Amino acid sequence: MHSLRVDLGQRSYPIHIGTGILADPALFAPILNKGPVAIVTDDNVAPLYLETLQQTLKALHKAPLVITLPAGEASKSLDNIQEITGLLLNAGYGRDCTLCALGGGVVGDIAGFAAAVYQRGVSYIQVPTTLLAMVDSSVGGKTGVNHPLGKNMIGAFYQPRAVIADTDTLDSLPDREFRSGLAEVIKYGLINDQGFFSWLEDHMDAVLARAADALVKVIGHSCKDKAEVVARDELEGGLRAILNLGHTFGHAIEAATGYGRYLHGEAVAIGMVMAADLSRRLDLIRESEQNRIYALIKGAGLPTLAPALPPADYLRFMRVDKKAESGQVRFILLRGIGSAVITGDVPPAAVLQTLQAFMEYDHA
Amino acid sequence: MHSLRVDLGQRSYPIHIGTGILADPALFAPILNKGPVAIVTDDNVAPLYLETLQQTLKALHKAPLVITLPAGEASKSLDNIQEITGLLLNAGYGRDCTLCALGGGVVGDIAGFAAAVYQRGVSYIQVPTTLLAMVDSSVGGKTGVNHPLGKNMIGAFYQPRAVIADTDTLDSLPDREFRSGLAEVIKYGLINDQGFFSWLEDHMDAVLARAADALVKVIGHSCKDKAEVVARDELEGGLRAILNLGHTFGHAIEAATGYGRYLHGEAVAIGMVMAADLSRRLDLIRESEQNRIYALIKGAGLPTLAPALPPADYLRFMRVDKKAESGQVRFILLRGIGSAVITGDVPPAAVLQTLQAFMEYDHA
Repeated sequence: MHSLRVDLGQRSYPIHIGTGILADPALFAPILNKGPVAIVTDDNVAPLYLETLQQTLKALHKAPLVITLPAGEASKSLDNIQEITGLLLNAGYGRDCTLCALGGGVVGDIAGFAAAVYQRGVSYIQVPTTLLAMVDSSVGGKTGVNHPLGKNMIGAFYQPRAVIADTDTLDSLPDREFRSGLAEVIKYGLINDQGFFSWLEDHMDAVLARAADALVKVIGHSCKDKAEVVARDELEGGLRAILNLGHTFGHAIEAATGYGRYLHGEAVAIGMVMAADLSRRLDLIRESEQNRIYALIKGAGLPTLAPALPPADYLRFMRVDKKAESGQVRFILLRGIGSAVITGDVPPAAVLQTLQAFMEYDHA
Repeated sequence: MHSLRVDLGQRSYPIHIGTGILADPALFAPILNKGPVAIVTDDNVAPLYLETLQQTLKALHKAPLVITLPAGEASKSLDNIQEITGLLLNAGYGRDCTLCALGGGVVGDIAGFAAAVYQRGVSYIQVPTTLLAMVDSSVGGKTGVNHPLGKNMIGAFYQPRAVIADTDTLDSLPDREFRSGLAEVIKYGLINDQGFFSWLEDHMDAVLARAADALVKVIGHSCKDKAEVVARDELEGGLRAILNLGHTFGHAIEAATGYGRYLHGEAVAIGMVMAADLSRRLDLIRESEQNRIYALIKGAGLPTLAPALPPADYLRFMRVDKKAESGQVRFILLRGIGSAVITGDVPPAAVLQTLQAFMEYDHA
């Protein structure tokens, strides 16, 4: 088992990564609050891993309440926050309870937000079962639900008590979702870690084959990179925004296509290709660097083209994205592989050229 | 104008109390974020003070978006959080916006919670227009909405950027609501400040006549007392619970009567009478002290008897109250006037005797 720590003063917490650790009561014992436990999961994950987690908790005399949501992004709604809190209230759960988020990013986001707001905040543990959740959403305390007018527009920064990433749960992950998670992994190399980016270039075959040692390396390294950024800027006052490389374009792609057509990581992959293109147009990176980025994303089996829509549609969703301040869209761009920069000062014509250069219509 | 500070490190903020300060742009200029401003208010308050606040903001070139909710506790719902955030999204408001909560406790709670969760947190200012909101809910960062199964069960600790309490807005406050606010004022004397309690005994006539100097004294002193407790325990880990004197009984009275029959302060007043009675039964205070407490609450024109209902009804709501941990009801009791104690160790028989002693049926 590999363990590391997210350093946030009183809100610090450990991340444990390993094989079969979901079945280890000794790992859970020190991170449960003194009250009862509830598991929040979805109907894809429940048949696979719920029984294991339940047994682990029962071994600690914490027979859990189980709350199973329909799988999918549509579950990230305020209605489900009302539903979850109602079930906790009916069960008489007080402030000393613990929620366990067992599942992917959707479950982690909504369970974390339920924990943030139930009785003004209770303890919760992230138990991610997808690569994307392990390397991204379970670390850093971003929680929330969607508003009909925008994704993640209602939420909170609320740190978990611990993250338990059992790599065995990735065995059941469909290939498309696995590759979607790799988009965020590649992102850490791009923004922060040239060495890790090169390692990924050299070892992508082992990663795609899900070799055990490659998985621990990928997850551990990604969590460490993210934890370092989060520790320096918990509330996204500045630096943390570099984690959104590819997300300004990516969110616009997800929103403009009505969510669901692209997995989050797929949209981010296209967004990173666009961010690299925009960076090259602004002479921040060389064409050879842009080509390496394109090649690694392509080599991970990720998409690199956005669907053909009027550019105005994308631009509208980019303006309402929460990275925008008063209508000014901020972009995360690259100054090189391993170095990101945040800027609001991008010529609209360049953004338009990038959008048009990476739309399916032009390349079909 | 009287000013004081809530000391919470990076989250510290000023409280300004005075006559006509709602019309002072210079007071608002340093506490607005750089983005646009939205006012959240209700349809009772809007006709009275909205125009003044709008003019003040317009003088600062911040023409505000106005969101007016129906007056009343029913507005504290997740549905209205969805509504408010939708209006902010439609207006294109980013993370650099500021919300102003113009109204009583309901407006402050829901606007504060909307600020806590909109895009994971934006800045907000409390502009309380009731005595209760000025001395209690606007200070300390408790925000939230109700769940059909329990009051304030969904919320967050989220501090405002400032509190602006214009005593002129109390001119329009109905007598019953003014007295309801006095319940919380009396509470501060009881839990923390014997001298203030004695001052209230000597000056209740001036307070009830709403003499300007008496109002500033009452509000300033209450805010100072509350700010001190909050500064020592922001997240209600322990000490802060003493602010809930009278609230365990009070919330049960509000819940058992379906909310609306009693104003919050009225229920707290009855709850404080009960807490004093329970304290005397447990030999924590003398009968003479209980009598002084009863007399001051009665003298403020507040109710002292709960409606006749089966005690089991009250006990059920006390158990689900969020001050309960795993079914153990914690009581805030008195060891004397000016000294509170938190305990979970209260004989159920004594609680039952107190409930029966202060029910209308027995005294009608």
